[in-house]
Amino acid sequence: MSVIDTLIDRLPDGRVLTDPDVIDSYARDKTFCEPGKALGVVLAGSREDVVTTLRWASEHRVPVVPRGAGTGLAGAATAGDGSIVLSLARMTAIRELSPADEIAVVEPGVITADLDRAAREHGLMYAPDPSSYEISTIGGNLATNAGGLRCVKYGVTRDSALGLEVVLADGRVLNTGRRTMKGVTGYDLTGLFVGSEGTLGVITAATVRLRRAPESPPATFAAEFGSLREAGAAVSAIMAAGCQPSLLELLDRATLEAIDDMRSIGLEAATMAMLIGQSDATDSAAAVARMQEVCEANGAAFVAVSSSPAEAEELIGVRRMAYHAKERLGACLVEDMCVPRSVLPDMISAIEAAAVRHGVKICTVAHAGDGNLHPVFIFDRGASEPPPEVWAAADEVFTRALALGGTLTGEHGVGLLKKRWLALETGEVVEEIHHGIKAVFDPLGILNPGKAI
Amino acid sequence: MSVIDTLIDRLPDGRVLTDPDVIDSYARDKTFCEPGKALGVVLAGSREDVVTTLRWASEHRVPVVPRGAGTGLAGAATAGDGSIVLSLARMTAIRELSPADEIAVVEPGVITADLDRAAREHGLMYAPDPSSYEISTIGGNLATNAGGLRCVKYGVTRDSALGLEVVLADGRVLNTGRRTMKGVTGYDLTGLFVGSEGTLGVITAATVRLRRAPESPPATFAAEFGSLREAGAAVSAIMAAGCQPSLLELLDRATLEAIDDMRSIGLEAATMAMLIGQSDATDSAAAVARMQEVCEANGAAFVAVSSSPAEAEELIGVRRMAYHAKERLGACLVEDMCVPRSVLPDMISAIEAAAVRHGVKICTVAHAGDGNLHPVFIFDRGASEPPPEVWAAADEVFTRALALGGTLTGEHGVGLLKKRWLALETGEVVEEIHHGIKAVFDPLGILNPGKAI
Ligand SMILES: Cc1cc2nc3c(=O)[nH]c(=O)nc-3n(C[C@H](O)[C@H](O)[C@H](O)COP(=O)(O)OP(=O)(O)OC[C@H]3O[C@@H](n4cnc5c(N)ncnc54)[C@H](O)[C@@H]3O)c2cc1C
Ligand SMILES: Cc1cc2nc3c(=O)[nH]c(=O)nc-3n(C[C@H](O)[C@H](O)[C@H](O)COP(=O)(O)OP(=O)(O)OC[C@H]3O[C@@H](n4cnc5c(N)ncnc54)[C@H](O)[C@@H]3O)c2cc1C
Repeated sequence: MSVIDTLIDRLPDGRVLTDPDVIDSYARDKTFCEPGKALGVVLAGSREDVVTTLRWASEHRVPVVPRGAGTGLAGAATAGDGSIVLSLARMTAIRELSPADEIAVVEPGVITADLDRAAREHGLMYAPDPSSYEISTIGGNLATNAGGLRCVKYGVTRDSALGLEVVLADGRVLNTGRRTMKGVTGYDLTGLFVGSEGTLGVITAATVRLRRAPESPPATFAAEFGSLREAGAAVSAIMAAGCQPSLLELLDRATLEAIDDMRSIGLEAATMAMLIGQSDATDSAAAVARMQEVCEANGAAFVAVSSSPAEAEELIGVRRMAYHAKERLGACLVEDMCVPRSVLPDMISAIEAAAVRHGVKICTVAHAGDGNLHPVFIFDRGASEPPPEVWAAADEVFTRALALGGTLTGEHGVGLLKKRWLALETGEVVEEIHHGIKAVFDPLGILNPGKAI
Repeated sequence: MSVIDTLIDRLPDGRVLTDPDVIDSYARDKTFCEPGKALGVVLAGSREDVVTTLRWASEHRVPVVPRGAGTGLAGAATAGDGSIVLSLARMTAIRELSPADEIAVVEPGVITADLDRAAREHGLMYAPDPSSYEISTIGGNLATNAGGLRCVKYGVTRDSALGLEVVLADGRVLNTGRRTMKGVTGYDLTGLFVGSEGTLGVITAATVRLRRAPESPPATFAAEFGSLREAGAAVSAIMAAGCQPSLLELLDRATLEAIDDMRSIGLEAATMAMLIGQSDATDSAAAVARMQEVCEANGAAFVAVSSSPAEAEELIGVRRMAYHAKERLGACLVEDMCVPRSVLPDMISAIEAAAVRHGVKICTVAHAGDGNLHPVFIFDRGASEPPPEVWAAADEVFTRALALGGTLTGEHGVGLLKKRWLALETGEVVEEIHHGIKAVFDPLGILNPGKAI
């Protein structure tokens, strides 16, 4: 019996897929990272399946790559040679939703937007909303500490995670955290798993915090600027003025062109950048009026303001199209630096300069209110790797981000793709501690080896 | 040369105190936990002093008890036999305060309220405000993940911590986190240190997040109830109605009597509980009016409402007096459970029942909006330990909290005092992981041994 057959034997029927094409489709995420030859895919249907798989993997020293929806942008769910992909996508139960306590207990495969919709039925919301929220899973969001559009006001996934059920590498079940709003019993293990990219354990359930959904409709604006730097300055000014947007997104000319190309948005020739913002406060119209003023003071050529939910959806829809529009241009290397908000204009200038210097097409979108930028470096779809000039431009941009007090990754994670830059930010002591912690949870090193740290 | 002399030798003059009375005053916190005989106290003036002390301690295997202001309520800063107390109270510099980025970089000995005041000069605030904020340090707040009155709206200390500088047990310096609002590079080491009660490293600097201070004056109310249960029900209802108070505190009759005794507040005979709430929203008066309605619907006998800052200070001053008022009644065992908000009335009934059944005086205050209760068990000041009936009542109350989905400690930490209950909540796997993590950071076990885990 082959190794994989011993696993098939232990799991309920139909849980393990071994067709090579199927394996390949589960072995990669949304990056260009090329997977190795994985042994198979487990479609876990329950915590028990996960326990069985991890016990088996420990016995046979088989690397396990946990997987949600595979929408990751860091190569973290890329499967290596001889590994098994452990998909949590079928564990989709919302086990509990308590409006009184404003919490939900969910399985990892729940689609982010589905949880949000379930919460809305009770006047609540699940706040973290990566642009991918219609396709990403809560488990993947937790494992990457996903951000999103609303996190400028409501925080990242970590801020909504109260407790986790995790299966450790050896199959033991660990419960972290709590159901309560506060709690300091023991070390913050919940926080440790959030953002650990599947390297410390497999999340099989999560207790998450819900929040009151805003009662009045949001007000929205879209501002057009003649330069990207002006738009960046407007963002810094909006935040410094205390306008508390519930969303503040920036798109550069290249991104707008790509979108306009996909679905005409009537892009003006002079528009070099667009800022899309929203307030969901009770006085949302007043808040947006203030943001409009700040935009105009910072050189905005035109500002459209709306309090209609349908128009708001349309404006924000433009933002949500950005990734797909860019994918049509070629293969994408997506950076994800986050800088202090005050230096956003400097960071933007550095990106523009790098594009020119290295002759590389860069389209930038940003969760601008958080200082989180996604310069997307476009390269030939045929290439298996970005060409040298793309790496050079990306190096330059990231080095500048660090010098400005920034960080390598605001929300996508390190995965495989960002490992080349990791040591520049972390240094020796951090690396040693990372590996020490990894060894506590996964002494055999079978969980998503080679990723994140 | 004695061991302590070798340390005196290595540090700048005057850093080490060895007078037994002085040592004793630094060897305890605000609990009744009795310290052992410590070797001395180091008053660190810089990170270098901390490094020197920890290197020395590692060489000589001397236990080190980090200490902020010693206002802890869990016995976490209690010094044991042969240990050294490492006080950070003299490291009080606010190294940087950036209004544009809404962050500050501070040394650990900064008094919490001092940082808040410094931020207010720029229209910002430092949100976490334990009742002790005029006497506690940021380092202590971080090491306990302190909560406070405002955290029902703004989160706990963790939610304001972006990055730390930490000296490890062997004297190496570790930098965690970042200056940016978001970031997911590597494991969440910042979160791991927050709440670790000095057992993983000594915090020598912190980058913290500031927030915009509310622009309009807050509105405040105080509601009197004929029963504690009704007040608890009002809390659950206020939160469920989405009123978003910026503060919601509950005081029981015994607490009110103790306060009235200290400084007359005109306590009515029929008042069995008081709820003090505040809104700092732009429409604060409307929000407080809604809370008033909810209180009345839940049986409040009388509700005082005010939009005057002076009156607000007075109302909240009543709450801030609670601890001192209780200290006058005798020695105090302070519990700190947190329960899901919907079961607050049940938890309150359980506390009242335990008081009666065991014949113990219990005064309860609560950060009620978070479900975080502090039943304070009063016992004879002469006793070195709480008598059996106090432990029995405390056991009963905590067991009930767990059964209701609650947690052992909402904000004070485990320290020494809560260790008797720890295993009931955590279980074997968590304990093993805790000790594994501890060994990564502090393989010799010299950092605050016997505490927290
Ligand atoms: C169009 C588009 C827009 C995006 N927008 C955003 C955005 O705004 N913000 C943002 O943060 N990200 C964004 N992303 C990236 C991606 O959607 C997020 O990283 C998301 O959290 C990944 O979720 P997933 O379920 O697809 O996880 P996967 O990609 O399958 O896995 C991601 C990581 O999580 C681990 N993992 C997954 N499930 C588990 C589990 N149950 N237990 C342990 N580990 C697990 C995997 O091993 C891997 O390391 C976007 C991606 C796309 C394609
Ligand atoms: C009147 C009163 C009211 C209170 N109200 C609240 C409240 O509302 N909310 C709340 O959460 N707490 C409250 N507390 C408890 C206490 O004030 C907090 O726990 C506070 O965070 C302790 O700060 P400290 O500086 O006094 O720390 P200490 O008591 O000196 O130490 C506490 C713990 O932190 C560790 N520590 C201190 N500094 C460092 C450092 N630099 N590096 C590493 N470890 C360190 C110590 O080893 C110890 O484990 C109250 C206490 C009193 C007396």
